[in-house]
Amino acid sequence: MTDTSQKKELEDLQEILRELRALLRRLQDLEEPPARNDVVGAPAAARPLLDVLRARLDALHLADVAFVLEALPLEERLIVWDLVKAERDGEILLEVSDAVRETLIESMDDEELVAATEQLDTDEIADLAPDLPEGVLEDVFQSLPEEERLQLRAAMSYAEDSVGALMAFDMVSVREDITLEAVTRYLRRLDELPDHTDLVFVVDRGRHLKGALPISKMIVTDLDVMVSAAMSTEVVRLHPDDPAQEAAQTFERYDLVSAAVVDDAGRLIGRVTVNAVVDYIRDSTEAEQLAQAGLREEEDIFSSVWDSVKNRWAWLAVNLVTAFIASRVIGAFEGSIEKLVALAALMPIVAGIGGNSGNQTITMIVRSIALGQLQNARMLFFKEISVALLNGLIWGGILGLVAYWLYENPELGLVMTGAMMLNLVLAAMMGVFIPLAMDKLGRDPALGSSVMITAVTDSGGFFIFLGLATLFLL
Amino acid sequence: MTDTSQKKELEDLQEILRELRALLRRLQDLEEPPARNDVVGAPAAARPLLDVLRARLDALHLADVAFVLEALPLEERLIVWDLVKAERDGEILLEVSDAVRETLIESMDDEELVAATEQLDTDEIADLAPDLPEGVLEDVFQSLPEEERLQLRAAMSYAEDSVGALMAFDMVSVREDITLEAVTRYLRRLDELPDHTDLVFVVDRGRHLKGALPISKMIVTDLDVMVSAAMSTEVVRLHPDDPAQEAAQTFERYDLVSAAVVDDAGRLIGRVTVNAVVDYIRDSTEAEQLAQAGLREEEDIFSSVWDSVKNRWAWLAVNLVTAFIASRVIGAFEGSIEKLVALAALMPIVAGIGGNSGNQTITMIVRSIALGQLQNARMLFFKEISVALLNGLIWGGILGLVAYWLYENPELGLVMTGAMMLNLVLAAMMGVFIPLAMDKLGRDPALGSSVMITAVTDSGGFFIFLGLATLFLL
Repeated sequence: MTDTSQKKELEDLQEILRELRALLRRLQDLEEPPARNDVVGAPAAARPLLDVLRARLDALHLADVAFVLEALPLEERLIVWDLVKAERDGEILLEVSDAVRETLIESMDDEELVAATEQLDTDEIADLAPDLPEGVLEDVFQSLPEEERLQLRAAMSYAEDSVGALMAFDMVSVREDITLEAVTRYLRRLDELPDHTDLVFVVDRGRHLKGALPISKMIVTDLDVMVSAAMSTEVVRLHPDDPAQEAAQTFERYDLVSAAVVDDAGRLIGRVTVNAVVDYIRDSTEAEQLAQAGLREEEDIFSSVWDSVKNRWAWLAVNLVTAFIASRVIGAFEGSIEKLVALAALMPIVAGIGGNSGNQTITMIVRSIALGQLQNARMLFFKEISVALLNGLIWGGILGLVAYWLYENPELGLVMTGAMMLNLVLAAMMGVFIPLAMDKLGRDPALGSSVMITAVTDSGGFFIFLGLATLFLL
Repeated sequence: MTDTSQKKELEDLQEILRELRALLRRLQDLEEPPARNDVVGAPAAARPLLDVLRARLDALHLADVAFVLEALPLEERLIVWDLVKAERDGEILLEVSDAVRETLIESMDDEELVAATEQLDTDEIADLAPDLPEGVLEDVFQSLPEEERLQLRAAMSYAEDSVGALMAFDMVSVREDITLEAVTRYLRRLDELPDHTDLVFVVDRGRHLKGALPISKMIVTDLDVMVSAAMSTEVVRLHPDDPAQEAAQTFERYDLVSAAVVDDAGRLIGRVTVNAVVDYIRDSTEAEQLAQAGLREEEDIFSSVWDSVKNRWAWLAVNLVTAFIASRVIGAFEGSIEKLVALAALMPIVAGIGGNSGNQTITMIVRSIALGQLQNARMLFFKEISVALLNGLIWGGILGLVAYWLYENPELGLVMTGAMMLNLVLAAMMGVFIPLAMDKLGRDPALGSSVMITAVTDSGGFFIFLGLATLFLL
């Protein structure tokens, strides 16, 4: 956190990055560059440079070190990683992206990994766990006190996109039958409150959540007031098995900074803070954007060619299959195309516009499903079909005229207009149906819908256009 | 905010929505349903129903009323809107989506709008301003005290996606030469702290920002300590003209709840809170997703058919033009297709896979531009071209064999493989070039890149495949 303006801050980081890269290049120009993971054994000439680098890195905020690591190619990244103070390793591993975390963990031996992990809170260890080698996790587990072992086991048991996965265990709770002064004295003994403590939770002897006391209210209220009088009893209670997505909507809707997580019996077991929610929103948006192009988060721009090919092949294969089917539809009409070759030139327009229009419909529907607005599917069907008919009339009409003008064939123009209208109607129906069906089946309608609609409007568009032409023109 | 679990909460809302809809249907079944905006003049039989509805709505949190309004079709939405207590109108208008806000404002007369707007803080009025009729804004402006007029004018002057647009003016600031006890006494006089006050800002006589005092630190520190000793001087300072996107990254990176906004002279002029940042992240993601399908936020599933057609036409027109160009490329090779009609069936595969592969590249590049990771464009070019060549060899090889098998023509198979490789390389080059060029030109590379790459790989794919076929097969 630097004492400068926001823009200057970003520029500073990029300046540091450039400096680091220059230093690293000079290191590599030395006759014997330090081997990976062996900065200690670097030649004498490299020492001063490494010291400069180390001092630079020590002065950076954790999150900024993570940024630098993400922005460096593998070799330079590992040199920087070796220079980072070991006691910051754990937190930085949490900060970096999946792709970068993998490369960092691969460069560390088990001992280093255990040491890095032991610095973390149990909920953070759980976040890191899937990326750690089996043995390391076991060692860390053995080293924890009993209570934290239980927490770690609980934290690891929650599904990836659940509230439990966002939950932290560090929080402050008090009883309701004491005064605010007693609360204040108790808090003072803590030296420091956990980050994002805007609420002190109020529990009974059995840890059942009774309410919450906003810190800001404590400050403006007389100290001899009882907690029970000052607390608010209308508090949001999250459950560890609730979808994280719902928790995010709750934070957004009610502008929360932190919220209690309770078990089925209403006992306080942890809390979720807004920074975890922001990270979740950002991560899930990013994962969704990548998934729409058939990519996973494990690839970044520094991944090897081979890793990239592996990451991308599945989606290309799916698209190849759908393209092949569309190609076979055309193949069935090869006789018609031979007789009227203009069909070959016009058919991709019908298919393409159908795909675009269908994607527009899907985007609208997916969004309203996400916002919980979808009540009346039949109304939607009719509306989208009306929009498609109107669009088909307008754009199909224009294209019909163009086809007529290009090929001086009025019937061809009419077939073009008719095919456009039919394919847009098909796109509208499938654009409503596909996401609704996926939602019903419990799958995320944002993923895969676009590939499916394009498959339908491609094959459908070719079939409709070539079929109409065969019927009416030949 | 209900005292229930998260899942139950959502179910409750949907239950209320169902109940509202049932009540509204019963209202409409009455012989004389209340006219829009005329609930007062409703027939006697409707009164008890309306009272039930009103009581239900009064018990809901603002954000939940907004949710209900968004989930209702126009007619029912306006009946509910009439029943909402007038003093909540302003806040609810801020909460609802753009499409719904438009319909609500249209249903209100100027007097109601002025009354609703006057309840808001100046930064909130500025958010609403673009949607208000000219006269209403003028009236509200005249009714404000001098200081707030200046604030409103300032707030309205900031660009849409700037820090200034996210900024609020409600905050607490103190001097550094007083004790924490004096601060506490001052805060008590406020009765209530502004929402999301995790920091009290420390300023000098000229309102220059000197530091910030975390509320949580105030609680655990002795009250006779001076502010200057307890405050942190390493504080994030945002500038009103910084892009909102950068502020969002800062909040995410440093896990902030609030941050100071200072002018060029370092004077404190406002603050940004995490809830505004969360809303911004959500809105900008949503706007981006819609824009990728050529949609604007003004459309929701209840928009009229005509409004939907208008919203969607521009993107369809752009795609029609690119599809037409691709069609003309095919048209130039009609002679070749006549001689070898298999070309017509195979050409969409080459074009389609090129588009998919190009979109994968673009997604990776856009993401790394957004994360500030892009340092070495040349390295990327070579990497993406290598990936494309490898993918072209694999998938082009498979397709070549398929084409050979389908048409018993080995030369056709070779042309297919060659065309796939070339089009994938074209897709890789343009997939790196297009977003980089857009970024250089200061445009958002996430928008429009996909349309462009598809245009290039379609026309390019047809040209490469048909051209190679004409050269080697005919």
